[in-house]
Amino acid sequence: MSENRTEISSLGEFGLIDHLTANIEIKNASTLVGVGDDAAVIDHFGKQTVITTDLLLEDVHFDLMYTPLQHLGYKSVIVNLSDVYAMNAIPTQITLSLGISNRFSVEALDEFYEGVYAACEAYGVDLVGGDTASSKKGFVISVTAIGEVTPDQFVRRSTAKTGDLLCCTGDLGAAYIGLILLEREKKIFLESPQVKADLEGEKYVIGRLLKPEARKDIIEFFQQSELLPTAMMDISDGLSSEILHICRQSQLGCVLYEDKIPIAEDTRNAAYKFELDPTACALSGGEDYELLFTIPQQDYDKLVLNEQISVIGYMTEPEAGRKIITKGGNTFDITAQGWNAFAAK
Amino acid sequence: MSENRTEISSLGEFGLIDHLTANIEIKNASTLVGVGDDAAVIDHFGKQTVITTDLLLEDVHFDLMYTPLQHLGYKSVIVNLSDVYAMNAIPTQITLSLGISNRFSVEALDEFYEGVYAACEAYGVDLVGGDTASSKKGFVISVTAIGEVTPDQFVRRSTAKTGDLLCCTGDLGAAYIGLILLEREKKIFLESPQVKADLEGEKYVIGRLLKPEARKDIIEFFQQSELLPTAMMDISDGLSSEILHICRQSQLGCVLYEDKIPIAEDTRNAAYKFELDPTACALSGGEDYELLFTIPQQDYDKLVLNEQISVIGYMTEPEAGRKIITKGGNTFDITAQGWNAFAAK
Repeated sequence: MSENRTEISSLGEFGLIDHLTANIEIKNASTLVGVGDDAAVIDHFGKQTVITTDLLLEDVHFDLMYTPLQHLGYKSVIVNLSDVYAMNAIPTQITLSLGISNRFSVEALDEFYEGVYAACEAYGVDLVGGDTASSKKGFVISVTAIGEVTPDQFVRRSTAKTGDLLCCTGDLGAAYIGLILLEREKKIFLESPQVKADLEGEKYVIGRLLKPEARKDIIEFFQQSELLPTAMMDISDGLSSEILHICRQSQLGCVLYEDKIPIAEDTRNAAYKFELDPTACALSGGEDYELLFTIPQQDYDKLVLNEQISVIGYMTEPEAGRKIITKGGNTFDITAQGWNAFAAK
Repeated sequence: MSENRTEISSLGEFGLIDHLTANIEIKNASTLVGVGDDAAVIDHFGKQTVITTDLLLEDVHFDLMYTPLQHLGYKSVIVNLSDVYAMNAIPTQITLSLGISNRFSVEALDEFYEGVYAACEAYGVDLVGGDTASSKKGFVISVTAIGEVTPDQFVRRSTAKTGDLLCCTGDLGAAYIGLILLEREKKIFLESPQVKADLEGEKYVIGRLLKPEARKDIIEFFQQSELLPTAMMDISDGLSSEILHICRQSQLGCVLYEDKIPIAEDTRNAAYKFELDPTACALSGGEDYELLFTIPQQDYDKLVLNEQISVIGYMTEPEAGRKIITKGGNTFDITAQGWNAFAAK
């Protein structure tokens, strides 16, 4: 953080907005009016518009003690873009509203915005509006993401079919381990500030928590491969919770194979260090921002060579229930709480 | 408020969302996917899309001590719709994110949503998404409104022309007096709870604060009259601040006539009771949610018969400055702080 401290009050609300948005360069032809009017104007030129929004509250969704502001700005954008991709759409714009307490300096806000702009740059989206308010109680972040999709190519959660393959992207459970790790380090620090944090070898899981990415590449791959999932959502609340959403909204059952759930080597090692079950972390941890989707069996050939996609099970008639088959060959019901809950039966 | 108290935790996050959104009926053909997926999908069928967002924080933007939750829900929607109308667009959808502390019951949230749905009903918009989070620190409301506009018929702040007439709708200053009044009653109540509030005769100013409306009728009038303002914005921060925005963004000066500023009889009477200057309330009060716009002089005939519209001045070359001519015939600079500031010179 810069050593200068400029008080936000020295700029005033409009001065602050001007300062924070001075260098915006519009990247999308669809952005007709951006920051600086009552509203933004967008023309998706015959495409359909996708809208999603998330509210992030200090000490509920993030802890400023171990979250660098730049990463927080980046992540605030990513979690919304992930929802747009989960509709099989391409994000094009965001709006950003902040509630800022006066313990923040202009320099601190600049850091946050650096992260926001880095995400906008990486994913090709324009910041087109928002609101800033002084907050008496903690940092409040509200992001709305807008995207576009070719008419009727959006993918819902409710349209999976019996026999479809259940697939997910990337690997799961890392962000949850990262959170456990940073919470432990925070506790140690608060009790014994002289102890130096031991985060060697944990870069992967911490990075997955603090600076996640959204699966733009997968949506582009779908388009290139002419592959349209039958159902899709992003994995933000843990794999088991999301699978249950797809089952419930599609009125289907499923079979999930524990040994097919993708978990990174670094995640496994960190989990064992904490005596946690890596599968449980994948099932009931959260904040992976990977995609969960279903495809017809005949489309299997189209994705088999993509190493970022794992087939983890298949959809069944609703009467068959929502099942996980463990490595040991046992079958359990999937519950929203994941492994721990059903393991306790 | 209902006497029952159902804890939010008894429903869980997804149960709560289901409860709050169970009775939504989609009103707009443009709403293809509403609540219940990663994102909403909208098709404005060749029209352009308008987006605006506002963040409302407890004890900064509203005080639950004198704000009924139903009115707060209504107002949270209205302040955003007002921004959409200010682009000469018609609002079609909203998203709503809430940070809710556990001092709220499900019944209290139901009241808030009653107000939200009443506004959606009155203005023909669909609630299509959002987010709920538990807040440790106060009630947080973030609304994004989406609207549609015939291509290139949106109206910016920056496009007023020299000689244009400066106009506003309705009447100004009432919400500010309403706020002063309720703050005074709160203070009296906190000091002497046994004193009964004396709000007789103040219904108008209190109503303007607690349950404002947005000027849908004016945008419809523009369309019927084939009138396209050259510049427009809504009046949320006081008339003088908004006039300066239009002047600055259009790079023009203006002349404003004090005696043309529309102020309701009830507002004047309430202002005098508090020994306030009604003009100062209109200039530097806020939350009127009226429209400020400019039209070419030759369009004067088209609006002269609309009693909801007042011509309050005209636009000038920038060198002429931004001036107000008082009832007494004196000329002052308009400042963002309104009357008080320049009267003190």
